[in-house]
Amino acid sequence: MYHLLYPLRTYLVVSGNEEERNVMTADWISPVSYKPFILCISISPKRYTHKLIKKYEEFVVSIPTMEIINDVWVAGTKSGPEKLNKMRVNFVPSKKVKTMSIKEAIANIECRVIDEKNYGDHTLFVGEVLNYSYNKDAFKNSTPNIDFKFIAHVHTSEFVTFDRDSIVNI
Amino acid sequence: MYHLLYPLRTYLVVSGNEEERNVMTADWISPVSYKPFILCISISPKRYTHKLIKKYEEFVVSIPTMEIINDVWVAGTKSGPEKLNKMRVNFVPSKKVKTMSIKEAIANIECRVIDEKNYGDHTLFVGEVLNYSYNKDAFKNSTPNIDFKFIAHVHTSEFVTFDRDSIVNI
Repeated sequence: MYHLLYPLRTYLVVSGNEEERNVMTADWISPVSYKPFILCISISPKRYTHKLIKKYEEFVVSIPTMEIINDVWVAGTKSGPEKLNKMRVNFVPSKKVKTMSIKEAIANIECRVIDEKNYGDHTLFVGEVLNYSYNKDAFKNSTPNIDFKFIAHVHTSEFVTFDRDSIVNI
Repeated sequence: MYHLLYPLRTYLVVSGNEEERNVMTADWISPVSYKPFILCISISPKRYTHKLIKKYEEFVVSIPTMEIINDVWVAGTKSGPEKLNKMRVNFVPSKKVKTMSIKEAIANIECRVIDEKNYGDHTLFVGEVLNYSYNKDAFKNSTPNIDFKFIAHVHTSEFVTFDRDSIVNI
């Protein structure tokens, strides 16, 4: 019943390098530390991404919006590197890691693996953020701009975004 | 720039037992494993909740909605056990842990700490879920019902919920 924590934000995770590369959709990501900026991501050993992260010890978390929801769906349901042919996003070099960033994402967070451990049927990778790039309009004054239609995963093929009119400022 | 992962879902975390108890607001929670159901939560050692989780090795993740946003705000901004006097929620016994559940939450996830490690300025606690209870209307067929106004944290005092009309079913 992990569904009790849903809806959860959906992200893209890029792994590998220029020669071998993959992208998967991942909901199980969380910040871990402010300073240094560290995050964690839980990935099944069944995933090709798992192998690539183990091999290169790097990954990039890319922030998609509803504009590229079809690519998010392909990345989350197709397996292996051939899925890249079915996706429309473009890859651009990252600054501090060899793993590529995604041009159409509103942010790319470049991570180096500093720890990993298996829990249950997944591996929790802990990554220190070495660099990040982002769309200034989407994150002005460190505040996400709801107009950018951040994606959250509801269940299987169902995704949702936020309602600007619902914002509560306490 | 942990803000790049925001908006993030906001949860309540109950710690302690009947004698000493605390509730805090936490955004840094993620599922880790399906079977067994394991989750992780990152908490600053400055928090009273941190001490209580270290001491009792249990915690409960409670899922709030906009109906109790004021309590979410108090739990996230006030410190120490006296904040409980400023909150309106009611505590009810959990089934498998001594830490209490929150009556007004739409779900309560009872966890036992199975691992913990410090990363940067936080401690990542990994908890195995021993039991959960939930509102059947809010999670029918394992699918969160958007009408229940799940809370996401935008920035500091700003919270938002999801837009049912934005649901995409691919």
